[in-house]
Amino acid sequence: MSAATDYFAQFPTIKYEGPDSTNELAYRFYDKNRVVLGKTMEEQLRFAVCMWHTFCWQGSDVFGPGTFHRPWQAHAHAAEAAAQKREVAFQFIKKLDLPFYCFHDVDVMEEGKTVSEYQKNFATAVDHLEQLQAESGVKLLWGTANLFSDPRYAAGGATNPNPEVYAWGAMQVRAAMEATHRLGGANYVLWGGREGYETLLNTDLKRELDNFGRFLNLVVEHKHKIGFTGTILIEPKPHEPTKHQYDFDTATVYGFLKRYGLENEVKVNIEANHATLARHTFEHEIATAAALGIFGSIDANRGDDQNGWDTDQFPNSVEETTLAVIEIIRAGGFTTGGFNFDAKVRRQSVDAEDLFHGHIGGVDVVAAALLNAEKLIQDGRLDQFKKDRYAGWDGELGSTIHAEGTTLASIADLAIERDLNPKHQSGKQERLENIVNRFV
Amino acid sequence: MSAATDYFAQFPTIKYEGPDSTNELAYRFYDKNRVVLGKTMEEQLRFAVCMWHTFCWQGSDVFGPGTFHRPWQAHAHAAEAAAQKREVAFQFIKKLDLPFYCFHDVDVMEEGKTVSEYQKNFATAVDHLEQLQAESGVKLLWGTANLFSDPRYAAGGATNPNPEVYAWGAMQVRAAMEATHRLGGANYVLWGGREGYETLLNTDLKRELDNFGRFLNLVVEHKHKIGFTGTILIEPKPHEPTKHQYDFDTATVYGFLKRYGLENEVKVNIEANHATLARHTFEHEIATAAALGIFGSIDANRGDDQNGWDTDQFPNSVEETTLAVIEIIRAGGFTTGGFNFDAKVRRQSVDAEDLFHGHIGGVDVVAAALLNAEKLIQDGRLDQFKKDRYAGWDGELGSTIHAEGTTLASIADLAIERDLNPKHQSGKQERLENIVNRFV
Amino acid sequence: MSAATDYFAQFPTIKYEGPDSTNELAYRFYDKNRVVLGKTMEEQLRFAVCMWHTFCWQGSDVFGPGTFHRPWQAHAHAAEAAAQKREVAFQFIKKLDLPFYCFHDVDVMEEGKTVSEYQKNFATAVDHLEQLQAESGVKLLWGTANLFSDPRYAAGGATNPNPEVYAWGAMQVRAAMEATHRLGGANYVLWGGREGYETLLNTDLKRELDNFGRFLNLVVEHKHKIGFTGTILIEPKPHEPTKHQYDFDTATVYGFLKRYGLENEVKVNIEANHATLARHTFEHEIATAAALGIFGSIDANRGDDQNGWDTDQFPNSVEETTLAVIEIIRAGGFTTGGFNFDAKVRRQSVDAEDLFHGHIGGVDVVAAALLNAEKLIQDGRLDQFKKDRYAGWDGELGSTIHAEGTTLASIADLAIERDLNPKHQSGKQERLENIVNRFV
Amino acid sequence: MSAATDYFAQFPTIKYEGPDSTNELAYRFYDKNRVVLGKTMEEQLRFAVCMWHTFCWQGSDVFGPGTFHRPWQAHAHAAEAAAQKREVAFQFIKKLDLPFYCFHDVDVMEEGKTVSEYQKNFATAVDHLEQLQAESGVKLLWGTANLFSDPRYAAGGATNPNPEVYAWGAMQVRAAMEATHRLGGANYVLWGGREGYETLLNTDLKRELDNFGRFLNLVVEHKHKIGFTGTILIEPKPHEPTKHQYDFDTATVYGFLKRYGLENEVKVNIEANHATLARHTFEHEIATAAALGIFGSIDANRGDDQNGWDTDQFPNSVEETTLAVIEIIRAGGFTTGGFNFDAKVRRQSVDAEDLFHGHIGGVDVVAAALLNAEKLIQDGRLDQFKKDRYAGWDGELGSTIHAEGTTLASIADLAIERDLNPKHQSGKQERLENIVNRFV
Repeated sequence: MSAATDYFAQFPTIKYEGPDSTNELAYRFYDKNRVVLGKTMEEQLRFAVCMWHTFCWQGSDVFGPGTFHRPWQAHAHAAEAAAQKREVAFQFIKKLDLPFYCFHDVDVMEEGKTVSEYQKNFATAVDHLEQLQAESGVKLLWGTANLFSDPRYAAGGATNPNPEVYAWGAMQVRAAMEATHRLGGANYVLWGGREGYETLLNTDLKRELDNFGRFLNLVVEHKHKIGFTGTILIEPKPHEPTKHQYDFDTATVYGFLKRYGLENEVKVNIEANHATLARHTFEHEIATAAALGIFGSIDANRGDDQNGWDTDQFPNSVEETTLAVIEIIRAGGFTTGGFNFDAKVRRQSVDAEDLFHGHIGGVDVVAAALLNAEKLIQDGRLDQFKKDRYAGWDGELGSTIHAEGTTLASIADLAIERDLNPKHQSGKQERLENIVNRFV
Repeated sequence: MSAATDYFAQFPTIKYEGPDSTNELAYRFYDKNRVVLGKTMEEQLRFAVCMWHTFCWQGSDVFGPGTFHRPWQAHAHAAEAAAQKREVAFQFIKKLDLPFYCFHDVDVMEEGKTVSEYQKNFATAVDHLEQLQAESGVKLLWGTANLFSDPRYAAGGATNPNPEVYAWGAMQVRAAMEATHRLGGANYVLWGGREGYETLLNTDLKRELDNFGRFLNLVVEHKHKIGFTGTILIEPKPHEPTKHQYDFDTATVYGFLKRYGLENEVKVNIEANHATLARHTFEHEIATAAALGIFGSIDANRGDDQNGWDTDQFPNSVEETTLAVIEIIRAGGFTTGGFNFDAKVRRQSVDAEDLFHGHIGGVDVVAAALLNAEKLIQDGRLDQFKKDRYAGWDGELGSTIHAEGTTLASIADLAIERDLNPKHQSGKQERLENIVNRFV
Repeated sequence: MSAATDYFAQFPTIKYEGPDSTNELAYRFYDKNRVVLGKTMEEQLRFAVCMWHTFCWQGSDVFGPGTFHRPWQAHAHAAEAAAQKREVAFQFIKKLDLPFYCFHDVDVMEEGKTVSEYQKNFATAVDHLEQLQAESGVKLLWGTANLFSDPRYAAGGATNPNPEVYAWGAMQVRAAMEATHRLGGANYVLWGGREGYETLLNTDLKRELDNFGRFLNLVVEHKHKIGFTGTILIEPKPHEPTKHQYDFDTATVYGFLKRYGLENEVKVNIEANHATLARHTFEHEIATAAALGIFGSIDANRGDDQNGWDTDQFPNSVEETTLAVIEIIRAGGFTTGGFNFDAKVRRQSVDAEDLFHGHIGGVDVVAAALLNAEKLIQDGRLDQFKKDRYAGWDGELGSTIHAEGTTLASIADLAIERDLNPKHQSGKQERLENIVNRFV
Repeated sequence: MSAATDYFAQFPTIKYEGPDSTNELAYRFYDKNRVVLGKTMEEQLRFAVCMWHTFCWQGSDVFGPGTFHRPWQAHAHAAEAAAQKREVAFQFIKKLDLPFYCFHDVDVMEEGKTVSEYQKNFATAVDHLEQLQAESGVKLLWGTANLFSDPRYAAGGATNPNPEVYAWGAMQVRAAMEATHRLGGANYVLWGGREGYETLLNTDLKRELDNFGRFLNLVVEHKHKIGFTGTILIEPKPHEPTKHQYDFDTATVYGFLKRYGLENEVKVNIEANHATLARHTFEHEIATAAALGIFGSIDANRGDDQNGWDTDQFPNSVEETTLAVIEIIRAGGFTTGGFNFDAKVRRQSVDAEDLFHGHIGGVDVVAAALLNAEKLIQDGRLDQFKKDRYAGWDGELGSTIHAEGTTLASIADLAIERDLNPKHQSGKQERLENIVNRFV
């Protein structure tokens, strides 16, 4: 087990050294015990490392195979390789001194092609994870089940035309939920990568939506039955791998939850890259979720503005992340959620060191964003402007409009009687952008 | 009034002449009395000409002023110009032999800057429209109010930070609803062009959504109060003019309607160009609306796949329109809705004749699509394939999954007991696309 | 070798049966011996099947492994698997009765990790291909070398920061060019999938362009040296796998060729999907190449207008393909080029039959487009309109402007002296679109 | 003239007050006399204010008329309005203490519908501008002629199907060039907003390109004839207003210049928003222009990543602008070019104050970017990494590849003889991004 266990041996534990540090393997902004807006940074940001991109992905893309050749990926014995991957992951997270991790069932286990193999191999993995958590103090932000990679899920999991595939998915999801519960996970996530369609020509849209709604209801019911008190999260994405994914964006997921009576049971896990693929800003998705009461957690990975697919890059814009963190703070901050790095180093970034650079950079970008958000909130001008702008709605006319008994006709009559002639007032966008820039 | 009244004098009334006609001013597919799928083509397609693009737009774009110089647009006296515009519009629709028209309040009237001017000028216009409808037999598909052009609406109508603007909007919407009712309109439309935001920095998203929901509730209440039996329609669009529009797409509108208790009261008016700007196909939006029970009406204008703004072109793809018409037929066809050409001839298409080419081409594309849809439905292979593909959901396992008392755990146990090992079945996308191509 | 050899045994040879045929395994438009616009359809269209997507790709995507499980892909012995793949490919092309195929070096051979293994394994493959060509009568449209899949090419081939990688690439390209020459290939293609960059932060743009220009000059020189008389082709693509690819689109490639003195030596292989990813229409790229004198060949695979990556689907729009084929005909038709299907059946289309549906549909779409183009050209209205529109340039003023000795000042003076006051004339876009629709 | 002359009276002259200033009407980074990288900031950045967006645009968009109601825009007498606009513009630029302005002919003059009116009115404007420049010390960065707004240019200026329109354009361009020369302009710009097409169906692409190339040659010839020593600049943009614009991006313009023999005579004016509309980063366009030897000047206005049209916003991202400024510095900095704000305040930003916020914010973003670029260049790690990465090309193998007499075959042989087996080295993208973030 040495090759894997030693993989990160040469690297120090990453520590906070302050903004002026020239050490590339140190945090410049993430000072985990510093209190920001009423909580420590660790509590506010709740960082998690993901198994999927960081330890399972081998550096392949559509035009070429893996480039990473990590020792555990090359291992001849699958069960042992999986064990090494679990170990090395915990070592890495400890080196980063971050509190959480996340996983899909298949990320952490030897592959199981049949139901019984799956059950057995996953159980082995969960036992080991429990032990690793205990030894390391690293906690589970969320667990999930992969219902998209295996060829059986080519046409979907919970939206598959074949109910046997749906049942296989139910089997996996039960196992992953129960594992998450046992491991003290704070949330359970569902990402519907193949819950969508390639062509309407072969798709019964309504039936698939109803089956999907049924599945989610079963999941929520099971959560309560087993006493899991974490949050159930759906992760919106507009497309890729499918042409169209049912969980297109936060507003779409909200309508879906309302339709199936789940808007008080399920929240969203928002990914920056998925937001922009759906033609929204990252902060739009957070603000929308907050307005609709379904904000849950974050996948921090960004996309590329010029490329039309999921590039899953580590966040590297403090400016953009600041706008996102402000909306999180306005939404009350995280409860069970956190900042997960569902990000991958570039296919060319083949060194072990690159995993550190990716995570350290991402952590510091988010931490700097939190510090900026604190300053902007303390400055108060943004909030004050917004308050003033809507002041009319706190006044007589605003109250009248919302009062019981008011009708379209009575408002129209009022406009006539008062001979209203309102003029547009400047929205001051440039001024507000300058204020933001003073603190970024 | 001669210049305007004579504007289309040189053109014949457009008639059906069959697919082999070489007359560029004739219909080759739209045979209004031909029965297709149980109704005449006129009844199935319910074509409408819009006032907005066809008679009001002057050919301007962001980089240059109008190019059209229509006689009524150049008229010195505003009231008379508006009257001429109304007359010439009805003459045009009669020449096209189409059954419906659509309008915004401000499209048909002399501008009214104050409340009282607005009321007076709009009343004059509505009297005239009533007379023109009676004389021509042309009917009203829908009316609407323009809450986006006047500078007072720069920050929105029903989502404006200033409740006085909201009240002005209520005044206009009441007037437009009552005019629509009086004119026998089949629907009333709301397009929220400025109901959205430019920057989150100055926007209270939740408050705006709540004000918008309140507005729509007032509209529905007013509909019932005045006895209007047409359909209230919202027209989704993702953005433009705003950075983000609240009625982003059909799924978003559905969630909005559910949130404010209106999903049984309001339907959607789907525009092809808005669908593609939101990264959906036209047929996706129709199928989604049908699945969610909110399909209403259509704006047929297409966009440009390489340009990222609303080009509002006449439909010219029989292939794409066929896929849309099939979904409309599957949704049961139109009830109160229809095919409106909210399309504009290109800025370079400055001749009166070009208005004929645009509409004739559009009508024939949709008519040909309907004939293709009929053939595809009669062929039956698409429907049969879909039925077979989901057959498992009509069987024992599908029924069990949906049965009361079934749980996630019981389904998972069933997968284990039966040692399920389902394999993916081909989705036959290429075959189905070939079948479609046999009939297009 | 039976599993592979029998793979297509159950399928008939695909024949032309005419538009009314209901046989899903027949051509309805591709009548290879029919003379269209002066050549047989076979000569006009020069269809080719590609090794890459049709026989090598296993149905994987970024979120899941292969779904196809073709017998030769599962074969335990690599050399034998490669041989089977070559055999089955020729059988398939014969069943389709198409004249050409295309390949990358690595598509047809057992992998060779070292220089000597590469040389040996590729030589084996080429011997076999030569024999298969002789037996089948299938010819080679083009060969190419894969300088993008192997991890060594992660940072590019001809633009790699390491000259040793460049040298490896030169070794492969020489081998592939000489094989193409020996096999009587009509063209040799270079697709620079990794010739681009991920981030400017680590990229010397100018140096990479110069190295790339040098490489292409060496290729052209080698072509002449070995007496290869086919055409050297570059295949433009804007991005994917790289963030930015140097061969962004046809106009960019033209500038590159001019810069390195190669505009008379190299032409472009235009792919529909790459055109749209670069925000151009397919026909734009063809018309641009024709105008610049560098039109070469076609990869017919289309993209998805809603998805931002290379979906490589079989062409299924006769309307769009007609506009492309017209431009090819206007460019004088193919000389050495042809229509290659660099297309893949969907990941869900796992049946052998699906390969037939994909190719038959694609062939018939292109064939129908050619028949439409013939009608449009014979109709003549499009060409006549264009001629009339530019007539002024054939007249006195147009000639004066282009005459030697004419200056900006003399033209300006002429405008003043004649008091020119030209008005815009309608571009008749809607009318022209209707004319096209009469023949599609 | 009081309303206009007093328009900015209430505002102070904007001064540098340092990063900690809380004055919203002061520069925090732009300290014009501070020496950065060998020149004062004023000399390095060469800021210009544009007439077009800042003084001519009235706040209209496609869905609504102007909102700004500036006094000079409402003026009844056109000649006097134009004079006021010129005066107020110079007052504004003085208040901002910026060195340059830019204009289109039609921005600064009373409209002239005939050739003689045009000549007369433009001459009046230029006399006035000369006087205003002398009084204020404000200089001209560039002049240009508007060949896109007037309806006569609906189908293009230099690419119009009608040579009379071309001649009108030549008349305007001569006038604007000579005015630019007389006013001491540093550059002359051509933006081909309508030099493109709406549909290939009515377009002779090759003829239009040739006419366009002829035009540009005449312009260059005229430049030399009149002794203008400034730079001729083309401004690339992919589309809007046209479907396709011939000057798509920098690489396309380069190919065009090479084709018509102008690559040593003409450079590019790169706009951030146009870069992103063409799916490039801003810095990509600069780096490409530098590599091709045609970098000229900058329009700093940014776009919106979620919206597909030209939003022309003031730059507000220091992070993005830093990456652009580094490339400018690497290209040797500006010679005749500068940073023009071809930006418009939002349609909702109707206050005079908003013009200050827009420009102050924009100036400070660019100034901060320059300071960051200085730090990154002084730090040296980025440059060193790049140097090391390509070191092989400075060594024996790199030299051999570029040596005369080296052939594809000799390089391939060398790979074989040396049994080369190069491995990919990490591109260190995450590390480099972190380094950038240390200085932004």
